[in-house]
Amino acid sequence: MKSATEYLTFETKQRRELVRITERVAALVQRSGIAEGMVLVSAMHITAGVFVNDDEPGLHDDIWTWLEGLAPRADYRHHRTGEDNGDAHLKNLLVHHQVIVPITKGKLDLGPWQAIFYAEFDGQRTKRLILKAIGD
Amino acid sequence: MKSATEYLTFETKQRRELVRITERVAALVQRSGIAEGMVLVSAMHITAGVFVNDDEPGLHDDIWTWLEGLAPRADYRHHRTGEDNGDAHLKNLLVHHQVIVPITKGKLDLGPWQAIFYAEFDGQRTKRLILKAIGD
Amino acid sequence: MKSATEYLTFETKQRRELVRITERVAALVQRSGIAEGMVLVSAMHITAGVFVNDDEPGLHDDIWTWLEGLAPRADYRHHRTGEDNGDAHLKNLLVHHQVIVPITKGKLDLGPWQAIFYAEFDGQRTKRLILKAIGD
Repeated sequence: MKSATEYLTFETKQRRELVRITERVAALVQRSGIAEGMVLVSAMHITAGVFVNDDEPGLHDDIWTWLEGLAPRADYRHHRTGEDNGDAHLKNLLVHHQVIVPITKGKLDLGPWQAIFYAEFDGQRTKRLILKAIGD
Repeated sequence: MKSATEYLTFETKQRRELVRITERVAALVQRSGIAEGMVLVSAMHITAGVFVNDDEPGLHDDIWTWLEGLAPRADYRHHRTGEDNGDAHLKNLLVHHQVIVPITKGKLDLGPWQAIFYAEFDGQRTKRLILKAIGD
Repeated sequence: MKSATEYLTFETKQRRELVRITERVAALVQRSGIAEGMVLVSAMHITAGVFVNDDEPGLHDDIWTWLEGLAPRADYRHHRTGEDNGDAHLKNLLVHHQVIVPITKGKLDLGPWQAIFYAEFDGQRTKRLILKAIGD
């Protein structure tokens, strides 16, 4: 079995931002030499998400509006600790912090419109994400 | 390490439909000869989901009602591209497009009421899903 | 390839409860002797979830309030079967029943605030969860 690991770091300019990372995941898979396997793409923070969806700006606006409706900025009990990011924790639960991408014949085996995004819910500081590929 | 890959295709009669796929996933695992490992079940489209839940028709009605409440058909910015399936993208984010099923002693290691479903949110056309098993 | 499997059982005193399981997952990984790989943490029931988030009591209260808002106890069609746990099935879909944790240099590779929780949505009876680690 082969494995390969890489840590990506993000420091977004906005508090909330979507960052396309498909190409960075593909680059790790190529370096790994893995032909058949899987790569885990997983945020290492609890106020960020990872998802696979369409790279279309109108849809991205829709996603932000939708997330704000279901997990709004508000006054949370978590804020008694001095934090102000309760909504970011809930958005993380809603969107999830990880995806697994299959590797076939040495490449990410994604559908034609599937792109991988890091979703920052509480940025403007350094955050990390792990890529871990395993296979043969 | 062993691996096995299969692509399932769906062309549902309805725009929205749940399709039970437990047996098709189990059949791939059997063919793979893998005794201990995992199988990834992942939609290759961004307007479909995969989940594990109960195979009970009343519950399935509840799930559709609930999904329509949290990610309704509506006028989305994504529709400026000519699409009309913004809700299907949001339902995909809510339900997720993939699950991992553990393989133990050559079989899917599911609980007694766990069944695997493909959830079509924008059907009546050909869609694909990948099964990728790895293990020993 | 190495693998290791363990089943955890829970019988919570309350109908709904969060149980921290980070240390139990770490113990399996240590016993497995796997240096590089992944561990799947997956509920074997359809009325429980697994998630990674902060171990902060105020946030946990926020999560319960939020879950009750998006997937409330109510009268569901599923209840015609004699069950009364339709909300627990929907909470399971919302939160998801599994996470994958990367293993690096023999340890769970989590971020500083990431803890793993079993989320019971319909407890006071015996429920199971599977841990399955694979790697080298």
